[in-house]
Amino acid sequence: MQAYTALTTTFARLGALCDAGGILGWDTQTQMPDGASDARGEQTAVLAVLGHEILTSPETADRLGEAEAAAGTLGAWERANLREMRRAYTHAAAVPGDLVEASSKAATRCEMVWRDARRDSDFARLRPHLDEVLRLQRRVGEAKGAVLGLSPYDALLDGYDPGMRQARIDPLFADLRATLPGLIAEATARQEAHGAPLPLPGPFPVKIQRTVGLQLMGAAGFDFARGRLDVSLHPFCGGATDDVRITTRYDEADATRALMGVMHETGHALYEQGRPAAWRHQPVGQARGMSLHESQSLLIEMQACRTAEFCAYLAPVLREAFGGEGPAWTAENLHRLYTRVEPGPIRVDADEVTYPAHILLRYRLETAMIAGDLAVADLPGAFDEGLRELLGVTVPNDRLGCLQDIHWPGGSFGYFPTYTLGAVAAAQLFAAACAAHPGILPDLARGDFSKLHAWLRTNVHARASVMETDELMLAATGRPLEATSFQRHLHARYLGEAV
Amino acid sequence: MQAYTALTTTFARLGALCDAGGILGWDTQTQMPDGASDARGEQTAVLAVLGHEILTSPETADRLGEAEAAAGTLGAWERANLREMRRAYTHAAAVPGDLVEASSKAATRCEMVWRDARRDSDFARLRPHLDEVLRLQRRVGEAKGAVLGLSPYDALLDGYDPGMRQARIDPLFADLRATLPGLIAEATARQEAHGAPLPLPGPFPVKIQRTVGLQLMGAAGFDFARGRLDVSLHPFCGGATDDVRITTRYDEADATRALMGVMHETGHALYEQGRPAAWRHQPVGQARGMSLHESQSLLIEMQACRTAEFCAYLAPVLREAFGGEGPAWTAENLHRLYTRVEPGPIRVDADEVTYPAHILLRYRLETAMIAGDLAVADLPGAFDEGLRELLGVTVPNDRLGCLQDIHWPGGSFGYFPTYTLGAVAAAQLFAAACAAHPGILPDLARGDFSKLHAWLRTNVHARASVMETDELMLAATGRPLEATSFQRHLHARYLGEAV
Repeated sequence: MQAYTALTTTFARLGALCDAGGILGWDTQTQMPDGASDARGEQTAVLAVLGHEILTSPETADRLGEAEAAAGTLGAWERANLREMRRAYTHAAAVPGDLVEASSKAATRCEMVWRDARRDSDFARLRPHLDEVLRLQRRVGEAKGAVLGLSPYDALLDGYDPGMRQARIDPLFADLRATLPGLIAEATARQEAHGAPLPLPGPFPVKIQRTVGLQLMGAAGFDFARGRLDVSLHPFCGGATDDVRITTRYDEADATRALMGVMHETGHALYEQGRPAAWRHQPVGQARGMSLHESQSLLIEMQACRTAEFCAYLAPVLREAFGGEGPAWTAENLHRLYTRVEPGPIRVDADEVTYPAHILLRYRLETAMIAGDLAVADLPGAFDEGLRELLGVTVPNDRLGCLQDIHWPGGSFGYFPTYTLGAVAAAQLFAAACAAHPGILPDLARGDFSKLHAWLRTNVHARASVMETDELMLAATGRPLEATSFQRHLHARYLGEAV
Repeated sequence: MQAYTALTTTFARLGALCDAGGILGWDTQTQMPDGASDARGEQTAVLAVLGHEILTSPETADRLGEAEAAAGTLGAWERANLREMRRAYTHAAAVPGDLVEASSKAATRCEMVWRDARRDSDFARLRPHLDEVLRLQRRVGEAKGAVLGLSPYDALLDGYDPGMRQARIDPLFADLRATLPGLIAEATARQEAHGAPLPLPGPFPVKIQRTVGLQLMGAAGFDFARGRLDVSLHPFCGGATDDVRITTRYDEADATRALMGVMHETGHALYEQGRPAAWRHQPVGQARGMSLHESQSLLIEMQACRTAEFCAYLAPVLREAFGGEGPAWTAENLHRLYTRVEPGPIRVDADEVTYPAHILLRYRLETAMIAGDLAVADLPGAFDEGLRELLGVTVPNDRLGCLQDIHWPGGSFGYFPTYTLGAVAAAQLFAAACAAHPGILPDLARGDFSKLHAWLRTNVHARASVMETDELMLAATGRPLEATSFQRHLHARYLGEAV
């Protein structure tokens, strides 16, 4: 018990360090003047190094062993906390210090080269740097895999989504692969038969967009005493404990996009704000993994806010805010705008039907790269071919092709699948919530999220990391994670088939 | 050399930690939602504890000894750096860990009680907490004093202003004490003979005040690639390396005050931005002390910006920005507004003539409290009596009396004198700058600070902490710190006597 208690102090300290890093990260994206970037790099590096030193110290290792030997005296949350402490320790200690440093530096350098290479659509410039990042990430995966008893890719995946495995993803993604192209073809044909929705006529002043965004955040249950909304080039949800900071990016010509962006980040934020306060600085109190985190954002954005019901609430709100009138401002047209399917080359611009195709491709490519079956030199060709095959889209150049995402240059291999696993989990959780509370959908037509929020709080947020992902899905929905609800959702929304 | 090099790595890490704390501190005052204050407290405490652990580790102590033994091989800046490292170590290591924690907690608690006690003008509520803070600060002073060979008060003072001593301040303040009351009486009589200046008629929209503030900051030489201007309840200059963040507070009924506040903080910021980049994270690269820091803010605000010359530049800027016309907007009236002498009970509202009287009083009281010659219970009476004696002002209640400042409840004994030492240094430095470059004053009439800024850069900013304060004053002005220039300045500006 003494060793466990000492560990909770150590991990509380690590949590506070991580929080400090979270605020600095937010600041870097939203406030920092350009000339401060080197100094900021030093600050975040020092926080990371100190955290790593504390986490991998012999003292931490000894105490973990002692606490595990005495785990019989601990309660369920404490035992789960100890399991998560061990996981954090194993991931951190598995990689030798020089490899941590080399891979971090290579990724920082590669990211910088990537910015210019993308701008100039110049893959050749990126190639040697991406080669080096891949080489080092494979070594990281091997080092972690050796300790965890996993393949290198599974070891990397486990760093983003604890417990997730390639063997779990493969059949799920194969299921989607089998049905997606047909679904996309049918959905677009069906849309064409209806004609294009009318764009909302702008302009949309930023100040009003922000006011509406804040109103919707509040309706969804965002706690402004413990969070904020700001502007950044790339929207995110960050910040710290009791201080959840989401961002968006406004376009005065289009209000629909920033609003859904705000609701997406609000979904992440509700998960951050809804976990139990008693475990706020302990590993078991953290989010279960990136798949479940993404499920919370997509549940709010895709499952709740792009429904006909929510559009019925939103349309008059927008009409009043922007002084709109005419056929573009009806709930029905708004719903058609928000459920438009349009295959294109860019992942972050994709709708929810074509988005998984982007992920299937990236998953296929990154597993092959980590396995040594795809060379970086062959990436552009494989990327273009894959997008043509999966989406029927021809990539005009590498800027709109394999150079579009920061993930690989930044060393994040194993992250991409969590986007679609999140979409799958979102559909499954939303279906279970609606089955438990049939009032959820009708309530959304009045902008009332309270039943949905309460269900998520109890079934997802409050559980933090006390269960593994599949255990949590089973407890919340009666089934482990599976694609059925997501497929059903897509068919219902885009082909008009009964749920 | 090896030990010294290792120390530079340790202190660079400490510098980055301190920078991270600086950004969190800025965030707390300008951005943080209310509900985050507990979590923020944990973050800043962890950064402080980790910094203290690194600074006072046996390894740091050993290396200091080794590096000092081999100091003969070091250059002048390196030797000064080693001296400042030793100073930082001595201050930190002199105080036992439990006393650090107890005094920090007592101050945090006392500050919280103080907010309510001030609001309610209820000294009795504060008294036991202030008693405890004073008791612990005396112990801190004794512990540091024992190691530094100083009295407790000198040891506390040395923490804010290295090398400053009570024996150095006493004659300087006695000099001011002897002349101030007469000067104040003459200045106010002279003003009354002229009649009151006309107030600028508002309102002054915040957005325009901010634009003018940014314009003046730019004119003074503020580098916006490495800094920002924001809003906070209590204006300050904070942030981090290459990221200097100043704040102000706007009043739509009065533009004059926020503008001078901005210029005051700009003076601090120029010092932060002007120190040598090569030493940015080392102790010798830091500001010399609080007196010199305050000298830089007061030099810009009081010495440069409240001159008739600068008002000649500012008046048309304000007329154009706010669309002003009529007799209130003349340069002469603006100068009279900016040099108005008006004794009052509140220190932060005081003009530059009466301000030193507030400091003389606080210095007298805090030295007596630390020496054990004044009990906290007797503070209100002594405060009221002192203000009547020094300024002829009757304090209506404790809220406007001894409860007005946060310093003592926050545990800052030894800080107050640096405000007036700063005013004294500012006058001496400005006189030397103008003597070296007679164009400085005429240039200010065109909003051109370049000669003044260049002189400060060379003679103050670029020297960082390589010299002690008096050495720096001697090198920059030919004299150690003395009250002569300040007295001459007050007589010239307020009694119209020739300089």
